[in-house]
Amino acid sequence: MVERRKPIPVSEAVKRVMNYPKQGEVEFVSLQDSDNRYLGHDLAAAHDVPPFDRSPYDGFAVRAEDTSEASANSPIALEVIEEIGAGAVPKYEVKKGQATRIMTGAILPKGADAVVMLELVKEVNRDKKDFIQLKRSFQSGDNISFQGEDVKKGTPLVKKGTKITPGVKALLATFGYAKVPVVKKPVIGIYATGTELLDVNEPLQSGKIRNSNSFMIEAQIKRAGAIPKYFGKLADDFEPCYEAIKEALEEVDFLITTGGVSVGDFDYLPAIYKKLHAEVLFNKVAMRPGSVTTVAVLGEKVLFGLSGNPSACYVGFELFVRPLIKSYLLSEKAHLLKANAVLKSDFLKPNPFTRFVRSAVLIEEGKLVVNPTGLDKSNVVTSLAEANSLIMLPGGTRGFEKGSAVEVLLLEEEGSRSTWE
Amino acid sequence: MVERRKPIPVSEAVKRVMNYPKQGEVEFVSLQDSDNRYLGHDLAAAHDVPPFDRSPYDGFAVRAEDTSEASANSPIALEVIEEIGAGAVPKYEVKKGQATRIMTGAILPKGADAVVMLELVKEVNRDKKDFIQLKRSFQSGDNISFQGEDVKKGTPLVKKGTKITPGVKALLATFGYAKVPVVKKPVIGIYATGTELLDVNEPLQSGKIRNSNSFMIEAQIKRAGAIPKYFGKLADDFEPCYEAIKEALEEVDFLITTGGVSVGDFDYLPAIYKKLHAEVLFNKVAMRPGSVTTVAVLGEKVLFGLSGNPSACYVGFELFVRPLIKSYLLSEKAHLLKANAVLKSDFLKPNPFTRFVRSAVLIEEGKLVVNPTGLDKSNVVTSLAEANSLIMLPGGTRGFEKGSAVEVLLLEEEGSRSTWE
Repeated sequence: MVERRKPIPVSEAVKRVMNYPKQGEVEFVSLQDSDNRYLGHDLAAAHDVPPFDRSPYDGFAVRAEDTSEASANSPIALEVIEEIGAGAVPKYEVKKGQATRIMTGAILPKGADAVVMLELVKEVNRDKKDFIQLKRSFQSGDNISFQGEDVKKGTPLVKKGTKITPGVKALLATFGYAKVPVVKKPVIGIYATGTELLDVNEPLQSGKIRNSNSFMIEAQIKRAGAIPKYFGKLADDFEPCYEAIKEALEEVDFLITTGGVSVGDFDYLPAIYKKLHAEVLFNKVAMRPGSVTTVAVLGEKVLFGLSGNPSACYVGFELFVRPLIKSYLLSEKAHLLKANAVLKSDFLKPNPFTRFVRSAVLIEEGKLVVNPTGLDKSNVVTSLAEANSLIMLPGGTRGFEKGSAVEVLLLEEEGSRSTWE
Repeated sequence: MVERRKPIPVSEAVKRVMNYPKQGEVEFVSLQDSDNRYLGHDLAAAHDVPPFDRSPYDGFAVRAEDTSEASANSPIALEVIEEIGAGAVPKYEVKKGQATRIMTGAILPKGADAVVMLELVKEVNRDKKDFIQLKRSFQSGDNISFQGEDVKKGTPLVKKGTKITPGVKALLATFGYAKVPVVKKPVIGIYATGTELLDVNEPLQSGKIRNSNSFMIEAQIKRAGAIPKYFGKLADDFEPCYEAIKEALEEVDFLITTGGVSVGDFDYLPAIYKKLHAEVLFNKVAMRPGSVTTVAVLGEKVLFGLSGNPSACYVGFELFVRPLIKSYLLSEKAHLLKANAVLKSDFLKPNPFTRFVRSAVLIEEGKLVVNPTGLDKSNVVTSLAEANSLIMLPGGTRGFEKGSAVEVLLLEEEGSRSTWE
């Protein structure tokens, strides 16, 4: 007798999973190793930027009042008393009739209140002294980058849960974070189930195929920002599966299994959840592919039972595992980013349930357009390799024609604050 | 006397750099470590997919001709002679009046030429034998996934130079690539020049700032797919700079320096290029920021002299270094992806030269919109942290108003086949 399961809507399934958020602790890593990690604390300016009044140009620091009479017809002359390179500290105060040669980024000497650009002066030497001649006047404050004008000490800059990009790294370096507080990555266990599975280095055998799902999921886990821990393959055999899964749960934050969640004779995952006393959040989702995707909870651990079919497995990961990982990492953009796009080719299958179509989004004339990648038999094998998105077609709709407006979930984008229906 | 340099257009500068392509050798890495690497060889199907005729459902393998008389009123009965789990090899041929119970993905037994889904049969036991009752007929080929129907052995699948995503990894696993041919990553050296630079772990000192550029560039190098090698800081002192750069060149594919490329008293890079006998491809680009960006070539090595200003440094990397890295990695998408977008706020500065504005692209209603991130003094410090794109405003234009169409270069996207003007 085939078990009858009641399907729930995809959005409801996502919500049920997100009811079990777990947040990562903070650990410190070196700035150099912090790429693509998620900030563990809010980041505020540790000091003013610029940290001192400085020159934005190569030029001369002067007292503006000394220049008030300067004009093309009667240039004034100022004695150059010092030269300050970037990083040097001025020795002398600029006094009446004096100027200091100053390099871009160098600290403004005491007494000076304006900078004259190199191109606007004529340098002359008289009586073994250096002078500049100036043909126009300057106002106090001209060409000075003032301390704190970019940002004041204490100003909030970047929120915790932000992914560390090259630009964020520059900020961290500026404020002296040799060690960066980041969210510890969750460890996601993987077991591939199925007697038919060969290891990647085994030659093909009659009736068997190579395990590809676990490698794909490892890559998806890394892309989402977590650490995969592959435990191996499990043959379709209840007791060893049960023991293996029970032990693996001790070592991970979440556990993914592939295969074994359907209602066939060799689908043992449902019975394993039962024996573990795990609470099944759902075991049927009104979607294609992956309707048998099952999620169960045991204490703080979430068990993801993904389909053994590669496409269903891929989609199940992105829909249900990924947002929980991002939420663990404190990301405010935990959800897949949903966008509108124009369908570039007919997709004429009817959609009794919500359908997720592997697809490639492109930008044309500033608009998103999307092509299904697995439409023809000829590219079903490469459809995941070419996909950067999933077209989401609502259940209860008929086919969609070329030019139709559709919704897509973008897999390579960081994500979205809001969940989607 | 200030040296006068002749600025060249940005697109011409990019072209001159791309005239010095260098392609990486192929090395082999484990499948598990191949994420985000670039394929070193074209990938073709190493065998048919599916590799054998198999069942897409749980059900019964039958001979279609045995079912031709079956109807709701007169169901037929077939004897079940065997059960084949996925991965198992059938022992018996299905003969007249027989059927074999078969699981999803299992190999079709000899003799059978159709599969009946589990839900469509009634299982009965008579005289200690198992039978199925069937109320409809099936055609030869019904519900069979035929060997090679997804892809034939030898079909080209993924081109060399493709970035290894989770979906590509699944393909590699399917075809038994325990070791994956990938392009060796180029090693990009970095020297930060400037006496004003402190290490990230040093407390601030009067007149000095922390070195942030090298950390930012290390992150940009990693994002582009290469290996950064940071050599340290160099004070503004000609001889030690020259010796350090000369030595560093031995250890890297390309070398980036930050700072020292302008025409000030402490800008030694131009003199160093001269003493090295490096050919300067350009030392002035008609763009803001980063007009002093200089690129020189010495044998096979390309030397990138980026500005010491963080924004100019960032832009210089993305415009000139990144495409050379991608081309080294055999990527067909070496160039920054250019797209149209709608400006979401006024940008009223005139643009005497091509201007690159740090910006954040968003998708609204299926269209790209873009906000400059460093428009106000208040967020100039975080402008790089928030940027995922550069608005490219043509030289010789006045300000752009909110709602204008502008072009953007997308930094987080993989890239584009074609270069841009």
